[in-house]
Amino acid sequence: MGKGALALLVNSNQQNWSPPRWKARFEEVCPDRRVVLLPDPALDPAEVHYAAVWKPKPGDLAAFANLRIIFNLGAGVDALMADHSLPDVPLVRVAVGDLTDRMTEYVVLHVLMHHRQELYLRESQRAKRWAPKYQWAAGALTVGIMGLGTLGAASAHALRALGFRVVGWSRNEKRIDGIACFHGADGLDAFLRQTNILVCLLPLTPETRHVLNRDVFAKLNRESLLGAPVIINAGRGGLQNEADILRALDDGTLGAASLDVYETEPLPEASPFWSHPKVVLTPHNAADTDADEISKYVAQQIARFEAGQALENLVDRKRGY
Amino acid sequence: MGKGALALLVNSNQQNWSPPRWKARFEEVCPDRRVVLLPDPALDPAEVHYAAVWKPKPGDLAAFANLRIIFNLGAGVDALMADHSLPDVPLVRVAVGDLTDRMTEYVVLHVLMHHRQELYLRESQRAKRWAPKYQWAAGALTVGIMGLGTLGAASAHALRALGFRVVGWSRNEKRIDGIACFHGADGLDAFLRQTNILVCLLPLTPETRHVLNRDVFAKLNRESLLGAPVIINAGRGGLQNEADILRALDDGTLGAASLDVYETEPLPEASPFWSHPKVVLTPHNAADTDADEISKYVAQQIARFEAGQALENLVDRKRGY
Ligand SMILES: NC(=O)c1ccc[n+]([C@@H]2O[C@H](COP(=O)([O-])OP(=O)(O)OC[C@H]3O[C@@H](n4cnc5c(N)ncnc54)[C@H](OP(=O)(O)O)[C@@H]3O)[C@@H](O)[C@H]2O)c1
Ligand SMILES: NC(=O)c1ccc[n+]([C@@H]2O[C@H](COP(=O)([O-])OP(=O)(O)OC[C@H]3O[C@@H](n4cnc5c(N)ncnc54)[C@H](OP(=O)(O)O)[C@@H]3O)[C@@H](O)[C@H]2O)c1
Repeated sequence: MGKGALALLVNSNQQNWSPPRWKARFEEVCPDRRVVLLPDPALDPAEVHYAAVWKPKPGDLAAFANLRIIFNLGAGVDALMADHSLPDVPLVRVAVGDLTDRMTEYVVLHVLMHHRQELYLRESQRAKRWAPKYQWAAGALTVGIMGLGTLGAASAHALRALGFRVVGWSRNEKRIDGIACFHGADGLDAFLRQTNILVCLLPLTPETRHVLNRDVFAKLNRESLLGAPVIINAGRGGLQNEADILRALDDGTLGAASLDVYETEPLPEASPFWSHPKVVLTPHNAADTDADEISKYVAQQIARFEAGQALENLVDRKRGY
Repeated sequence: MGKGALALLVNSNQQNWSPPRWKARFEEVCPDRRVVLLPDPALDPAEVHYAAVWKPKPGDLAAFANLRIIFNLGAGVDALMADHSLPDVPLVRVAVGDLTDRMTEYVVLHVLMHHRQELYLRESQRAKRWAPKYQWAAGALTVGIMGLGTLGAASAHALRALGFRVVGWSRNEKRIDGIACFHGADGLDAFLRQTNILVCLLPLTPETRHVLNRDVFAKLNRESLLGAPVIINAGRGGLQNEADILRALDDGTLGAASLDVYETEPLPEASPFWSHPKVVLTPHNAADTDADEISKYVAQQIARFEAGQALENLVDRKRGY
């Protein structure tokens, strides 16, 4: 009897996410296991023990009666959670150092851009205007990070190391050296009142949908040298109320926004974000997935499981992340 | 007999560098000493024991027969070195954590901007084009830092922490954990051949003038995922041959340049840098001076000196830095 097959299901129009590339990678790291790219009409569904997926269509996984684990090929499982027919087996998400480091790069870059007045400096360059403005030091600003998980905690440490004051907000109570931590609905206001630059690294769940809204923006701290506060969202588009962001930018409640994710992706051409002078947008590439790292991670988790060890980074379906 | 006076001479059109502001700061930190703003016709030159200066005109300090120390109110002494009538007393330059941290912010920001393809992403935003390109991780690039002094070493550490490979180049041999160090004319080529992003934090001396030239650009490493190499100069304008930079950008020898300093400052309106699509320019504000920190530093150095201790950050006039 051979080992159960690993089925791969990847729906993505992102460059570098080609399903055959994933298949080749998985064949390399699982040399003694059959790797099948779905859909495959010749496949006996009973053969499939593991599935590694990105944005499968609801129902796509229901046919696999012997499925043991579902691996989500990214950090966020919000797309999977919408599938009510998802087999009731352990669901493992990706948490690899490579992805975390890339997100840290994105967050540090965008915090520094707003802190160092890049929008103003680029406008001055376009106008051929030599007009240095007073530039405060990092310690003059507080960066508030929503979500202190794998990604949020890493960004918090990197920003601290650069001299920013950092506060954080999570669901459960947390203690992190050098970072004032708040949690839950009760802790939100105190967190926002200190925050000059708000970084959102939450998962999208029923509780967090549209957490980036006008009420939240209005509570951010406007007393720093930065003036109007700034938001940076690299979590999921569903976390943000886009109409509220536009209104807040236009009436001065917010000074600027860096957005990597959108309610609809690709961002429609008609979105006012594209040409908004206070918006710095990127096409959902804050933390690109490295197929090498992630296929290795999945192979490791399967080996752990087959050796009777506990799986890592299990998703709690009730919480939704 | 009172304490010798501290004479202040500040020639700068920078915001936040107003001479009266400096005077107020120095009076606060040297409460029992007379602080004079030059020129002051009522002043007896023999009274002056210390001078704290920024870009004095050649000859300005020659009259002070009892001068004990000259403090340069910035890190770079190139402007002072041009004054051949400068009294032959110890010359102390500024090296304070605050200034170092600000330079690190600038360097990290600009390295990340080029690494994360910001020029391409802003162009895509202007064109309303959702077109994520493959984004490599920091470890795919080598940042080469020219000058491993106070500023260069701090930037090297911060870039290492973000995952970049870092190499460095200095005048004398150096050992820094995790950073491959090269030195002298003999070490330059090996340093350049590894470097994808070249960061210049050298002082301007007769030896370093125009070190950023076509020959050097041609030796940089083009094999990384970044493709054409990038330069970042936050040292002094005299370090760069501006005609060479433009030519190298236009023929593809260089992919982009971040410049904070220029051969002539303010940068003339006629400079092609302003509107060059591959140039990211800032108006010599990479590391703004904080009058509070620097006046405290000068007061401390005077106290050390009067207590018979050694001065810190003495300039070697023969080397020129
Ligand atoms: N843009 C991109 O390229 C990209 C790439 C990767 C990931 N992402 C997004 O980033 C998200 C975070 O990833 P991760 O690996 O850091 O996740 P994680 O380790 O699961 O951390 C999630 C954090 O959010 C907090 N949280 C969840 N629900 C909350 C609530 N209702 N109120 C307050 N805090 C709440 C959690 O609190 P507790 O600690 O108390 O549980 C935890 O600190 C992913 O879900 C994904 O959507 C985006
Ligand atoms: N743009 C701004 O806002 C701004 C602000 C502050 C300073 N700066 C500039 O930054 C420069 C560096 O500041 P710092 O405090 O780091 O100076 P530093 O501590 O004196 O360090 C200078 C470094 O350059 C190296 N060096 C000097 N001459 C060299 C040569 N001929 N060949 C190779 N290496 C050479 C030195 O080598 P050794 O270690 O072997 O001596 C040293 O590592 C200042 O001089 C100033 O011009 C710019």
